[in-house]
Amino acid sequence: MSDFPELNCPLPIGQYERVLMAHGGGGQLMQQLLDRLVQPAFDNPYLAARHDSAVFESGGQRFAFTTDSYVVKPLFFPGGDIGKLAVCGTLNDLAMAGARPLFLSSALIIEEGFPVDALRRVLESMAATARAAGVCIVTGDTKVVERGRGDGLYINTAGIGRLDAGTPVIRPAAARPGDVILVNGDIGRHGIAIMAQREGLALETTLESDCADLSGLVGRLLDAGVDLHVLRDLTRGGLASALIEIAEAAGVGLSLEEDAIPVREAVQGVCEILGFDPLYVANEGRMALILPDDQAEAALAVLRGHPLGEGAALIGRLTESPAGQVRIRTPFGTERILLRLSGEQLPRIC
Amino acid sequence: MSDFPELNCPLPIGQYERVLMAHGGGGQLMQQLLDRLVQPAFDNPYLAARHDSAVFESGGQRFAFTTDSYVVKPLFFPGGDIGKLAVCGTLNDLAMAGARPLFLSSALIIEEGFPVDALRRVLESMAATARAAGVCIVTGDTKVVERGRGDGLYINTAGIGRLDAGTPVIRPAAARPGDVILVNGDIGRHGIAIMAQREGLALETTLESDCADLSGLVGRLLDAGVDLHVLRDLTRGGLASALIEIAEAAGVGLSLEEDAIPVREAVQGVCEILGFDPLYVANEGRMALILPDDQAEAALAVLRGHPLGEGAALIGRLTESPAGQVRIRTPFGTERILLRLSGEQLPRIC
Repeated sequence: MSDFPELNCPLPIGQYERVLMAHGGGGQLMQQLLDRLVQPAFDNPYLAARHDSAVFESGGQRFAFTTDSYVVKPLFFPGGDIGKLAVCGTLNDLAMAGARPLFLSSALIIEEGFPVDALRRVLESMAATARAAGVCIVTGDTKVVERGRGDGLYINTAGIGRLDAGTPVIRPAAARPGDVILVNGDIGRHGIAIMAQREGLALETTLESDCADLSGLVGRLLDAGVDLHVLRDLTRGGLASALIEIAEAAGVGLSLEEDAIPVREAVQGVCEILGFDPLYVANEGRMALILPDDQAEAALAVLRGHPLGEGAALIGRLTESPAGQVRIRTPFGTERILLRLSGEQLPRIC
Repeated sequence: MSDFPELNCPLPIGQYERVLMAHGGGGQLMQQLLDRLVQPAFDNPYLAARHDSAVFESGGQRFAFTTDSYVVKPLFFPGGDIGKLAVCGTLNDLAMAGARPLFLSSALIIEEGFPVDALRRVLESMAATARAAGVCIVTGDTKVVERGRGDGLYINTAGIGRLDAGTPVIRPAAARPGDVILVNGDIGRHGIAIMAQREGLALETTLESDCADLSGLVGRLLDAGVDLHVLRDLTRGGLASALIEIAEAAGVGLSLEEDAIPVREAVQGVCEILGFDPLYVANEGRMALILPDDQAEAALAVLRGHPLGEGAALIGRLTESPAGQVRIRTPFGTERILLRLSGEQLPRIC
């Protein structure tokens, strides 16, 4: 960034005068857009916390508030659809702050000519996913844009959750040297399932997206009194990008064991053929958990006792230094540093 | 609706198999989409209340929660831009429930190639509008879609507000026969300003949108202890559609005096030339207030003492019957019934 003398100057974002696909990809360019344009404009400590949800207090209660828009392509994919994704994604963002979801909103931007039947299927999918999580979609909005001005259907969901009294604040900056890193299962399935569907890849096995609501699983961890420092869902940019953000936010080093990170054979195979790194592929039902070493056993027991955590694994540890860096040790004993990509390997996966 | 034997069957919406522009227009077709598709899918009392915000209670406090997506075209127009509109619109939806706004979210869907400078202007406009209202934009999301798959920029904002302890619930169903109807100023300017800009109409006077945050003005009414039964901002579908919704929700009759409804000469002129009815033209800083007759004087005093209420007027009264109907008396003493339009006269005005 040395070519930008004024770091607070919101323009240009990098050398770009126009927004690129990569500015929405969860990597370095998106970070620059947020750092140089959004954060300076909206300047406030809630946003600066760079959490999946903003946490605020009112009358002695703590609430979490979050939003996401969904532009996934295609709208229906193996293991889910844009409606399920829109509900799970926002429930997960609430859960990542340790909040119990209360209410969701739903705002639709529909392209003129979109089939009513497909809309009904998406709405029913949203409703079923919300119902299973025990939350209501209580407010909404519908806009229609002209044919050719949208892309079928975009959905925004916002969510409100409540934190249990006494729950410590779970956030990226709470990571501590000595903590361990867990994931709740194999990574990379969502991105690869979307890509296979989009490109019409004939895979030997049908890969389904991992798209799932993690709030119930996080609720069990809270109920069990597991001391959680950080939770992060592994969406755009995948496991690697999420961990790099945490390393930077907490000023700690993260050290991963490549061997320990669960990746299905089919995902690994597609990645090898196409030159993707599963560490950077998006997930929609996977999270990283960072917690004290002495909590690992209890956490793994809760995770493995739940359908969404059966494949949970301990994949690494936190160190004092090098601060802000994520390193990974290969099965051959060599080590490499994980760097932010400029954008997402696969656009429009959420 | 007699051609649909099963009212609860979500399909078809009317006779349509595909979504039309009018399904997002705030009129009859949008109502059908909500009644037959959204409401049956999401089925819950919060949504069924058909309010601008959902109101819920937690730990003895009452909160309002709302969302809207903004797809206005053009993005910059006389008197505002999509950013100001997105913040004002959601602040207004909170205010219409009698809530004091606390926090907003902001989710952007940007088309690849959108100028960074225009994005900066929109973000700064959002920030300035939020700052003036004393609220923070605390959480957000950024998505980028391919060139040709979006339309420059769509913005979603969601908002959370808190209701004062003891404030009665302000909602459409609270309207009572004998109540009076006020508006806070002249109607139709937003829609006409957008249309003039879009069509390149050369008007003798520059018409500016009425786009404004009404939450401060509503706050003053609450502070003054004015007993408010219903508040409704006059967006898509304008004054007429908002009042028809209230008449139906409360099962009361509304009787308007055409003479008493403030419309600027320039708006009236454009409407006459183009065949629009100003009663159906969208506003973004105008609201209808329904309150007991004995509160009218106090309310008008508060309204007229605020820049956004200088042109406030008493425009009609509520009657027992005919329930669910809005009638308007012309200067010639004749009366006509206001009916829902199928959609909006001008699409993409918010």
